Amino acid sequence: MLEESVKRELRAIVGDKYYKDDNETLVTHSYDGTPMLQSLPDGVIYPGSTQEVSDIVKVLAKHRIPIVSRGSGTNLCGGTVPTEGGIVMVMHRMNRILEVDLENLTAIVQPGLNTKEFITHVEELGLFYPPDPSSMAISTIGGNIAECSGGLRGLKYGTTKDYVIGLEAVLASGEIIRTGGKLMKDVAGYDLTKLLVGSEGTLAIITEATLKLIPPPKYKKTMLAMYTDIYGAARTVSKIIENRIIPATLEFLDNPTIRVVDDFAKLGLPLDMAAILLIEQDGAEESAVERDIALITRICEEEKAAQVSVAQNQDEALKLLTARRSAFTALARLRPTTILEDATVPRSKIADMVLEINRIAQKYNVQICTFGHAGDGNLHPTATTDARDPEEIHRVEEAFAEIFEAAIELGGTITGEHGVGLVKAPYLEWKVGKAGIDVMRGIKQAFDPNNLLNPGKMFARETRKRVVIQRG
Amino acid sequence: MLEESVKRELRAIVGDKYYKDDNETLVTHSYDGTPMLQSLPDGVIYPGSTQEVSDIVKVLAKHRIPIVSRGSGTNLCGGTVPTEGGIVMVMHRMNRILEVDLENLTAIVQPGLNTKEFITHVEELGLFYPPDPSSMAISTIGGNIAECSGGLRGLKYGTTKDYVIGLEAVLASGEIIRTGGKLMKDVAGYDLTKLLVGSEGTLAIITEATLKLIPPPKYKKTMLAMYTDIYGAARTVSKIIENRIIPATLEFLDNPTIRVVDDFAKLGLPLDMAAILLIEQDGAEESAVERDIALITRICEEEKAAQVSVAQNQDEALKLLTARRSAFTALARLRPTTILEDATVPRSKIADMVLEINRIAQKYNVQICTFGHAGDGNLHPTATTDARDPEEIHRVEEAFAEIFEAAIELGGTITGEHGVGLVKAPYLEWKVGKAGIDVMRGIKQAFDPNNLLNPGKMFARETRKRVVIQRG
Repeated sequence: MLEESVKRELRAIVGDKYYKDDNETLVTHSYDGTPMLQSLPDGVIYPGSTQEVSDIVKVLAKHRIPIVSRGSGTNLCGGTVPTEGGIVMVMHRMNRILEVDLENLTAIVQPGLNTKEFITHVEELGLFYPPDPSSMAISTIGGNIAECSGGLRGLKYGTTKDYVIGLEAVLASGEIIRTGGKLMKDVAGYDLTKLLVGSEGTLAIITEATLKLIPPPKYKKTMLAMYTDIYGAARTVSKIIENRIIPATLEFLDNPTIRVVDDFAKLGLPLDMAAILLIEQDGAEESAVERDIALITRICEEEKAAQVSVAQNQDEALKLLTARRSAFTALARLRPTTILEDATVPRSKIADMVLEINRIAQKYNVQICTFGHAGDGNLHPTATTDARDPEEIHRVEEAFAEIFEAAIELGGTITGEHGVGLVKAPYLEWKVGKAGIDVMRGIKQAFDPNNLLNPGKMFARETRKRVVIQRG
Repeated sequence: MLEESVKRELRAIVGDKYYKDDNETLVTHSYDGTPMLQSLPDGVIYPGSTQEVSDIVKVLAKHRIPIVSRGSGTNLCGGTVPTEGGIVMVMHRMNRILEVDLENLTAIVQPGLNTKEFITHVEELGLFYPPDPSSMAISTIGGNIAECSGGLRGLKYGTTKDYVIGLEAVLASGEIIRTGGKLMKDVAGYDLTKLLVGSEGTLAIITEATLKLIPPPKYKKTMLAMYTDIYGAARTVSKIIENRIIPATLEFLDNPTIRVVDDFAKLGLPLDMAAILLIEQDGAEESAVERDIALITRICEEEKAAQVSVAQNQDEALKLLTARRSAFTALARLRPTTILEDATVPRSKIADMVLEINRIAQKYNVQICTFGHAGDGNLHPTATTDARDPEEIHRVEEAFAEIFEAAIELGGTITGEHGVGLVKAPYLEWKVGKAGIDVMRGIKQAFDPNNLLNPGKMFARETRKRVVIQRG
């Protein structure tokens, strides 16, 4: 509980309306998109400007009160659960597009802006902002920046990091810094912009972002390839890239995912397929797109795809993409608890990784559906389970630990786009090593010496013991 | 001077042949590509492996001896001048391409690898590594990473930062860290990879890099547009981007640069033009490239280009590009000392910036030729002067200080691709502010608490007083 005097200070900054600590508000800000995690904050504050953010941080720093800044909380790593209490700072009031600069192809936005609203707005202006996390209808740009969100277009167009070229942020001291700018190149000192992207609210609170926009591709084609052999699908992914084609989207769905997605979206997909690839190519010229799609079709056929179909129009393509985006939602209907992970491997290792996931699921007797961004090696093994069954949950956790270990053994990482947060913190050392953790802790210490910005995230009290994979 | 016992320790690591402290070696490693800077190291060491680098760093850390790691020293910011003595570590022995992975489109290389050799090698394999600093015939990949080198293709393809996806590096403690990997996505902790790119040898010594490769564009066209009005050229730059065309190259040369380049490369350029734009477009389809070139031609004509010509073949195009790359060399023939800067502005501000540079050159009565990467707002105002004339050098320095101030006033930065090093350190605070400097110092402290890695770079003892620009 905050002292009354602190509350008075906070209310003086934002007004009575924008500081809340009634039970309903506290409870609704005690969790995020991640299952099985909940912790009550002491208060929730809604700043309206950078200056207010700075003033709030100064008050909280003085009293050593933790601050968890957040947007819509769609993250899947427990990144915005206020595990150490304190204040949740919701950025939703700071949700404006401040500028779209058509001469420089840049936009300046506030962090609370809804991702899809922004994408739609720039598309209406004939421009393109590629990062498209599946949560984009709900998520905010600030949240995307905090987590370095990816999405379906990451393979060809990169992730949030590649489009953030300038930031305004409030430091743990309350000071305001500005990094980068409307500049395609800037090497004045360490790259604080890219360091803050993906720093999960642990280094500073982002209050404004300058984003790079690009001309949209003029043509687009979407296709599906279905396989009775899962490894044919995986080999297709590798072969497409080997053939020097970088598709805009190259998504993978395994059989359990196909079944639930089809049940949810009523697409009439064949339910006996082991895997489906959803592939999209775009470009400046129709003939180039057609040529790529033809070559991809040939590769699919060489890899014994049972069926290959090209969407006949944009409606049909959109339906397929929307179905893929709904995979998480569809899977969530199966059982009470859905745990979605994002172990990521070099794209040539997709087949090996799928094999490992299936072996591990069987070993621990848990249900894991796998889908994801095959083109960039970013798979989403998703466990459907029940939080009320601790014994099963334990098996699920053991299975995921082994999946992370398998990903690292294949040259991969514990998280490709979801972030570390609370959930992956015990595994971070597996990827970055003891020396890597020490360096990261040093950076955290330099930015936030009193550990007030999103404390408890990224760095675990204890690293989990590594799994020794024993194969049969 | 190093103590004999330290030399013995170093020789024991690399062998007698690879530690040198004869006068010739010390003098040849006392300077880099930057004029008017020289400082003798105490010794020069040539490690042959990551383990040797680690062992060397441990010895030097124990004795608190500064370490300046370097490649070919082509940088223009005094980044590798050993101003505080100590050991210069030359990475030239670690110059191998360890792997080109055709399935993942990645390469693993050692830092001492020559940039052009690498580019040529991957091109022979049908792949593309875009960063192409003008120094690439001499520079090393490690040096490019330390400085986050740009080049002529940065506008469309980005800079070194965009292609480094994994690093191995030796910390100030001698510990070895590995960041990233053959992964298109990795959000496991802070992005140490991007933080180390452009950190100018002040945070760690890079010993290996994993680089992203892309499929090469299939078609390419090169053109020249010549203007009697310099602002017509600058407006053309803005209008091309506004028209949603991102050319592969969009270079600007002013009249003095045209004259010296033509004299050097014998191209028969018209010497009465105020400015020339060198434009290149590439793409997957000939018709798309042709369409862009046609639209660019129309824009050039609308902006009253006196002459527009499209290169008829690849030889002619190459000649033009090579001439542009030779601008620095050509200008260096004019007078004994050439000081090349890289103030960078939003691309819409190119015309304003050129106007400011000319006004400032006149004010201080110095000769400044301007050329550079207009498409990304990265200009290279280049003073031809004489280091032996302290009064003139003083005026040149005053002029550049005012140019940096002008760039910042236009929303730009003090350096787009050359780095801070020694030369820009007194100006860094102008761009990043006091709070920004403090954060950067904190990061430096976290990585290198005893300030042994390239000390004296990036952070100045004193920030230069800001210039008040008085116009009219």
